[in-house]
Amino acid sequence: MTNSFGRVFRITTWGESHGPALGVVLDGCPAGIPLSNEIVQADLARRRVGQSKVTSPRQERDRVEILSGVWDGQTTGVPISMITYNKDADSSKYDVIRDLYRPGHADYTYDMKWGIRDHRGGGRSSARETWGRVAAGAVARQMLKTAGIDVYAYTVQIGSIRSESFDREEIENNLVRAADPAAAAKMVEAIELIKEEKNSLGGTVEVVADGVPPGLGDPMYGKLDALIGYAMMSIHATKGVEIGRGFGSTTSTGYENNDWLYTDDEGRVRTRTNHAGGMLGGISNGEPVIARVGIKPTSSIEQRQETVDKGGNAREIIVEGRHDPCVVPRAVPVVEAMMLLVLADAWLMSRTSRVSWEGPSGL
Amino acid sequence: MTNSFGRVFRITTWGESHGPALGVVLDGCPAGIPLSNEIVQADLARRRVGQSKVTSPRQERDRVEILSGVWDGQTTGVPISMITYNKDADSSKYDVIRDLYRPGHADYTYDMKWGIRDHRGGGRSSARETWGRVAAGAVARQMLKTAGIDVYAYTVQIGSIRSESFDREEIENNLVRAADPAAAAKMVEAIELIKEEKNSLGGTVEVVADGVPPGLGDPMYGKLDALIGYAMMSIHATKGVEIGRGFGSTTSTGYENNDWLYTDDEGRVRTRTNHAGGMLGGISNGEPVIARVGIKPTSSIEQRQETVDKGGNAREIIVEGRHDPCVVPRAVPVVEAMMLLVLADAWLMSRTSRVSWEGPSGL
Amino acid sequence: MTNSFGRVFRITTWGESHGPALGVVLDGCPAGIPLSNEIVQADLARRRVGQSKVTSPRQERDRVEILSGVWDGQTTGVPISMITYNKDADSSKYDVIRDLYRPGHADYTYDMKWGIRDHRGGGRSSARETWGRVAAGAVARQMLKTAGIDVYAYTVQIGSIRSESFDREEIENNLVRAADPAAAAKMVEAIELIKEEKNSLGGTVEVVADGVPPGLGDPMYGKLDALIGYAMMSIHATKGVEIGRGFGSTTSTGYENNDWLYTDDEGRVRTRTNHAGGMLGGISNGEPVIARVGIKPTSSIEQRQETVDKGGNAREIIVEGRHDPCVVPRAVPVVEAMMLLVLADAWLMSRTSRVSWEGPSGL
Amino acid sequence: MTNSFGRVFRITTWGESHGPALGVVLDGCPAGIPLSNEIVQADLARRRVGQSKVTSPRQERDRVEILSGVWDGQTTGVPISMITYNKDADSSKYDVIRDLYRPGHADYTYDMKWGIRDHRGGGRSSARETWGRVAAGAVARQMLKTAGIDVYAYTVQIGSIRSESFDREEIENNLVRAADPAAAAKMVEAIELIKEEKNSLGGTVEVVADGVPPGLGDPMYGKLDALIGYAMMSIHATKGVEIGRGFGSTTSTGYENNDWLYTDDEGRVRTRTNHAGGMLGGISNGEPVIARVGIKPTSSIEQRQETVDKGGNAREIIVEGRHDPCVVPRAVPVVEAMMLLVLADAWLMSRTSRVSWEGPSGL
Repeated sequence: MTNSFGRVFRITTWGESHGPALGVVLDGCPAGIPLSNEIVQADLARRRVGQSKVTSPRQERDRVEILSGVWDGQTTGVPISMITYNKDADSSKYDVIRDLYRPGHADYTYDMKWGIRDHRGGGRSSARETWGRVAAGAVARQMLKTAGIDVYAYTVQIGSIRSESFDREEIENNLVRAADPAAAAKMVEAIELIKEEKNSLGGTVEVVADGVPPGLGDPMYGKLDALIGYAMMSIHATKGVEIGRGFGSTTSTGYENNDWLYTDDEGRVRTRTNHAGGMLGGISNGEPVIARVGIKPTSSIEQRQETVDKGGNAREIIVEGRHDPCVVPRAVPVVEAMMLLVLADAWLMSRTSRVSWEGPSGL
Repeated sequence: MTNSFGRVFRITTWGESHGPALGVVLDGCPAGIPLSNEIVQADLARRRVGQSKVTSPRQERDRVEILSGVWDGQTTGVPISMITYNKDADSSKYDVIRDLYRPGHADYTYDMKWGIRDHRGGGRSSARETWGRVAAGAVARQMLKTAGIDVYAYTVQIGSIRSESFDREEIENNLVRAADPAAAAKMVEAIELIKEEKNSLGGTVEVVADGVPPGLGDPMYGKLDALIGYAMMSIHATKGVEIGRGFGSTTSTGYENNDWLYTDDEGRVRTRTNHAGGMLGGISNGEPVIARVGIKPTSSIEQRQETVDKGGNAREIIVEGRHDPCVVPRAVPVVEAMMLLVLADAWLMSRTSRVSWEGPSGL
Repeated sequence: MTNSFGRVFRITTWGESHGPALGVVLDGCPAGIPLSNEIVQADLARRRVGQSKVTSPRQERDRVEILSGVWDGQTTGVPISMITYNKDADSSKYDVIRDLYRPGHADYTYDMKWGIRDHRGGGRSSARETWGRVAAGAVARQMLKTAGIDVYAYTVQIGSIRSESFDREEIENNLVRAADPAAAAKMVEAIELIKEEKNSLGGTVEVVADGVPPGLGDPMYGKLDALIGYAMMSIHATKGVEIGRGFGSTTSTGYENNDWLYTDDEGRVRTRTNHAGGMLGGISNGEPVIARVGIKPTSSIEQRQETVDKGGNAREIIVEGRHDPCVVPRAVPVVEAMMLLVLADAWLMSRTSRVSWEGPSGL
Repeated sequence: MTNSFGRVFRITTWGESHGPALGVVLDGCPAGIPLSNEIVQADLARRRVGQSKVTSPRQERDRVEILSGVWDGQTTGVPISMITYNKDADSSKYDVIRDLYRPGHADYTYDMKWGIRDHRGGGRSSARETWGRVAAGAVARQMLKTAGIDVYAYTVQIGSIRSESFDREEIENNLVRAADPAAAAKMVEAIELIKEEKNSLGGTVEVVADGVPPGLGDPMYGKLDALIGYAMMSIHATKGVEIGRGFGSTTSTGYENNDWLYTDDEGRVRTRTNHAGGMLGGISNGEPVIARVGIKPTSSIEQRQETVDKGGNAREIIVEGRHDPCVVPRAVPVVEAMMLLVLADAWLMSRTSRVSWEGPSGL
């Protein structure tokens, strides 16, 4: 069960970096959603490697093939299996790590857990697994569209550079997917510099969901907060997650932090501020759902590092290969996908909350 | 399923703040663990209200009664049901919020979700639910002891005050459960001051697990990181969680952030630093597991705030009652409990990872 | 997880025969269902021991106390915890089986599994666990009523005696809960006779659900057939289950067995026969759902039987105590409860099957 | 979640009869099990269509390709994805049922559930889905071998003909997979006759697991009985399941039915008879686990039957195409696979039952 995520809208991902293929099975997707390879491919295009000078030059083949669950252009209610074949995988470069543990990678821990490890390209621990998340997220997006829910993510920080303005239109206009073009330019520069230094940078991705109706999420372990924490921390290289004001709220007071309620001109209950990030008691309140995800700097760097081999002997390693000096831009669609999956699941679950069901308000 | 947490070591909590009782059912606990009311009570004592001047004076009755699953002083492998009865609950003070939404609370969202709400003491959304987590955590602790795993939490920040030293022995010696006695004194002062101002403070709790053997946790959605993110974000008032260096790692470089491996004098593979917080690829590496949890300032404050009532009419509210001006000290045992539950679950799951099972290394 | 049943409408039962109490937690029940102790008690009354000369004279206290999840006479959407206290339990009579294995009971297997066993009254393996199923089934019944679904069970066979007519009104008019009063009289006689012989009888219970709309159940492992098989085979003493014509269909031909479709005067698609028992491909077709459950003869008999003790030594045992010479009449409400739980779960799940939800037809 | 089966050893199947491919993802398989396409193919060969004159002539391509989870000839602990491509699917013959409901099939119910249906070859409701069960069962078999568990199934009845002797060696020597060669000959004859009559037959499959150690299975809803009931009733065309003596026990007395215990020459506790079918209280007792599964006669018959179309209009249908006049022989490996999956899951789960784990006795 550990390779599955979601309760009623549930994905199971499979595949290794250098195996013949990777994929995802999405179970629990309702019938009647327009779906095609093209729709899914559009989302996948955004996580592709080789898309710019600030990412790895590896030409991954990310082409999706939907193998089941779609008929006559629509989902049919049965499992949607999506696959992509690995083509451009050169495993020979990984021979060196067959018996050597890369710092910052799962090499040692996989060996300790299972006693056997497919080392090629990191095997199952590779971020290539996120392909399936983004593919399934595209289906979730199609479904949530019908409910008026709109999810988008963007880079807010890389290294020491932070965005200071927000223009959604700018996000896809720059290589780092920041909503602030000026900051984006500096981020690109910082990545180019760190690449030259054979080093790497981390950063932070923010994700927003607009149009979420009040009433999504369930106490206690079905809280939106909990599901978002779970989803985001399952992403490779993630080291932190926060909702709304997040850790920032820990240094404020209750009076400052509480979001006051009022009724807007259309008669909708709203809050004056949104420090809570769109949820209270784990349940959406109709304000935008907002989370931030902290991504560590890429572990693979072409510098001499100390490590040990399988026998425990002291060794040195320089991790060669085509690696992103900063994975934050590519994490953007993955963070987005996980939010889509959380909300799709919560949205479907919310249909079971009342005996006389009229749907959560706003639907 | 939304009130359950864990896969094979699984809790289900139930109960409202002012209902007749609250409880937890723990399913999947192995047989042969010494257990008694007293053992569980010892952990519960630490989350009790009314324990000091910096917490609420309400005399909660937290006495546990184990109703099943224990025989002859040991667990028997069947569900452990634990209950506590509510005695000192005065619901009349809550009449005012029957039709009024408190800012920062789940009042509005519960109404939107279900159309009916037990408003007394916050009903199901009350942090009193954490009683069951701590009770079950005490059982997890008993089990993990046999594996040499030791979990402890402590306050590292309240408002603007941060701990600067660490002495585990000090944690239970001060009212805020900080490991730095000098910071603790300032934190107590800050809480007393904010209490006078009828306001509240938030803060951060850190939790450490020592003795975790390598090999616990499973890719992808069974990663320790993901389970910790899930567990911690399910705690009331939590707005953020981070592992190891957390968000701090996002401003460092790969070279700085990678933990180098070496073999220690006892032949054990270790890392020079522990920025990763004890896990790589979601699997424990034998270093201490470290997480931090950000808690928002208490929402209940005795100050005039704007809000709306059930009809959407603009109203003002002053939340009276006995409330903690800072829940961080009481969150410490809850954070600890959630880490215990995550590790208990991962520890049992790890027994299924190899066909010829000898247990994760070190066991 | 092994003491839980259901996916979104999910029960967790706990408790041992002679522990202080037993109970059930029902998670996932929608808000807005009228509920009270009295409503649940009415269903529980039917499984009570001591209700007639053909059942055990033990005066079990089956009184339910709802501890959570109900407010102002209605369910609130949060977990419903129900408890009953054990009062009339005399454990001393069980001292003899502390180290002795009763044939037909779980004594030996529990010892082998856990190495520790609460032997008093059979501990966790006691059919007293079914209290929680019936209590939760009563809630399911309340919910399904709103959808026009009506579930009832009755005895169709005891020993060699089979019902030959059906009158629903008769079911509660006789001690064995048969719908055929003539057969019922013979069944009672047979039980009285076997009781004198210090022996026991088994039999078969049939359960019917009327008013089930088409569209409930999900492929593959969410098929109604599969869930019914799962539910019924989890009942103590059950050794077989069949749907519709069941094993009888295995000796018929396809031409005889297929249910032909037609449209009735009200424009509803129906089948001429109902050999399928109300489902095709695991999904309800609008015909009555019908299952039969085979119950073995009571294992506890006051006759000399060969067995072994904990040390493996050959021993003889006469199982004394107050035991039903035939549990079939008391199994009737339990079988009914399990069908209610299966349908409640499937009914809620069916709300997630279409993106534009109008509910399964007929709702 | 409805297309998944198992708790820790968990399969998810996907695919439609005439889609591009079908497959299964097996999550939770331990590392270190020798596995290859060939090993899985050997089991798949037994469920293949076109294998004899008593089954359908369709040349299904059942060739398995393992896409993940195996490295260097062994399982690695991560998901095992297995796929087979559909080659010989001629969908045009199914055009007639696009708007017409076949009696005995899921056509009507799928339409009612989802409002959209891939009618080609029965779509998702096709028994072709069992490919994934058998493939995963082959992996389970590899694992259980290491524990000395051996599972085999065989036909015990077709139409009115029942086996009267048992010789395991005979099972694969006849077209119907009966363990009684004389009965097998009659069964073949009966199937040939019914085929000429354009009609079909049902029957019963028995499955046995030898070498199951005591202690597998968990109360209440993890009972072996319950899991077997669940597993078997999820198989297409199954209408009944029984354990051990099954429905036969309902007409016996407790004295006759109880299995007496004794200690054999090797000091192992055994039972004189095995009416219980190898389990008590849902937990294995070391005797062979025995279940029987009732399969209805094939619904697809080339005879005129009454039905309705999508608009509810009365119609007649003759189901043409290549259909097995009796699916029982092909159900044998599927029943076997489901027992393998149940035991694999229970076997892994049993490792979590004691805190000081030495494995269930006998391991």
